[in-house]
Amino acid sequence: MNFSVTILGSGAALPTKNRMPTAQYVNCNNRHFLIDCAEGTQLQLRKYKINFQKISHIFISHLHGDHYFGLVGLLSTMNLLGREKELFIHGPKELQDFIMPMLRFGGARLAFNLNFIALNTTDKIKIYEDPVLEVHSFPLKHKIPTCGFIIKEKKKALKINPKKIKEKNLKIEHFKALQNGKDIILENGEEISFKDVTLPPTDVLSYAYCSDTKKNLKVVEFIKEVTVLYHEATFLIKDQKRANSTFHSSTKDAALIASKANVKKLVVGHLSSRYKTNDAHTEELQNLFTNSQVAEDGLCIDLAKEQSRS
Amino acid sequence: MNFSVTILGSGAALPTKNRMPTAQYVNCNNRHFLIDCAEGTQLQLRKYKINFQKISHIFISHLHGDHYFGLVGLLSTMNLLGREKELFIHGPKELQDFIMPMLRFGGARLAFNLNFIALNTTDKIKIYEDPVLEVHSFPLKHKIPTCGFIIKEKKKALKINPKKIKEKNLKIEHFKALQNGKDIILENGEEISFKDVTLPPTDVLSYAYCSDTKKNLKVVEFIKEVTVLYHEATFLIKDQKRANSTFHSSTKDAALIASKANVKKLVVGHLSSRYKTNDAHTEELQNLFTNSQVAEDGLCIDLAKEQSRS
Repeated sequence: MNFSVTILGSGAALPTKNRMPTAQYVNCNNRHFLIDCAEGTQLQLRKYKINFQKISHIFISHLHGDHYFGLVGLLSTMNLLGREKELFIHGPKELQDFIMPMLRFGGARLAFNLNFIALNTTDKIKIYEDPVLEVHSFPLKHKIPTCGFIIKEKKKALKINPKKIKEKNLKIEHFKALQNGKDIILENGEEISFKDVTLPPTDVLSYAYCSDTKKNLKVVEFIKEVTVLYHEATFLIKDQKRANSTFHSSTKDAALIASKANVKKLVVGHLSSRYKTNDAHTEELQNLFTNSQVAEDGLCIDLAKEQSRS
Repeated sequence: MNFSVTILGSGAALPTKNRMPTAQYVNCNNRHFLIDCAEGTQLQLRKYKINFQKISHIFISHLHGDHYFGLVGLLSTMNLLGREKELFIHGPKELQDFIMPMLRFGGARLAFNLNFIALNTTDKIKIYEDPVLEVHSFPLKHKIPTCGFIIKEKKKALKINPKKIKEKNLKIEHFKALQNGKDIILENGEEISFKDVTLPPTDVLSYAYCSDTKKNLKVVEFIKEVTVLYHEATFLIKDQKRANSTFHSSTKDAALIASKANVKKLVVGHLSSRYKTNDAHTEELQNLFTNSQVAEDGLCIDLAKEQSRS
């Protein structure tokens, strides 16, 4: 099964030639999510050939414009292109009051159900669950109420050892019980222990998103051991004071959180437009957290690969 | 003096690889205006190297998203980049109610004065005037209240004939009276008739914007004899029925209005995303109105050149 994150915008508030403001597309076992939706997100989705009609849930971290000004345009376009599939938007409670009057006044009668769900911005809360994964929101520390998100696969079933299928004459109808750790009796009376015919499950993968936020050690417990952490690093260490005063993070802050949470890989983004390249961020990160990377627009992170690398 | 219009977005509601939705930048004698402001307008302004902090007035034709969803982002960016210069926004009265809560909630304390002026959507009204030009709004016929705009230079002063300056020993302090058609007496007692030392003024230039609208003959009186008319032609003639039912125009409709108003040049835009190229529009237009052109993103129309060509 696949679990990938595509960075649609890796910049901070001011869009530049190289970096659009924040949005990310997550495909987790063919569940399709969008995290944040800055101005131009619909164009980025097109650019990277993502079928945005498949998106079922949109998570908006907070109401600074560079994280949601593209939402109303994306919803309009989804509607114009004939969307019928229900859509869920999780965001600060005021979001609905901003978006709905604009859609209504424009005369767009949505042909799909649009559900706004207010985020709890003070506690860690499960906001989505299905048989294979869960999504939680948790509070970050920014100028206005802001949430991070964690998308985590559930414990996976055991794998049938392909070598044992012929040897034990297993049929497909036997698999489910064995994969769930139950012994079975074949029609010929033979007892089969699940331990003899299965292999360990593939690793549970997880992705955490922390943007925007100042350094916040409370976050560590929420994102412990995730496969990939995306954490903002708007500033370099030399601009740490500015990071603190604007409720943002430096590379050092991001690396500290990644280190304390023992994540496998750190990706930093939300780079201030004052930095013309990502060279300085990359250099600083190399000394702070080994398995790390600076995000770029279009970067596609394959979580299974990151897990197997570490 | 210069008078140019840069097409920032020539497409209809759905942005495509080639066409962004509607926005136009007008530089009229160093007055800087923006007409409409679709999602992505701030990126287009950057792309075409336009200093958007110079813009003093923004005119929003109507509240369909493809004409204003980029406004809140542009205002935020202007503020982040340190704008102090006052800004005037003319648009439907509800616009302010949509934009201001988003700016306020995001915590953006605007460092510049932002003035919303409600458009009258039923009559032709003068909405701006200074010593060299006037802007009027006038009603169009669309699904929701919509205005067109006309930007027109005022009658210009006569030009001093350069050959006569030495011959008559004219000094700069004599120019203004002569240019305004007044005779003068030099210090040596010589009488100078303005007719002898001046040339006719350069032509008065004017630009009219009609988008979005169905064919509306009432518009003709408002835009009579303009130098350049930008009129929407969302559809080709073969899709005339669809143009009518969606309150849009075909190439034929646009050409009829241009012809009845006796404009010098017609530029059509707001092309539906169903047309992959502008070939068919161009072909139809050639047979309908000789001096015409299909808009493309980045097209810069120099009105003085268009005037001299015709």
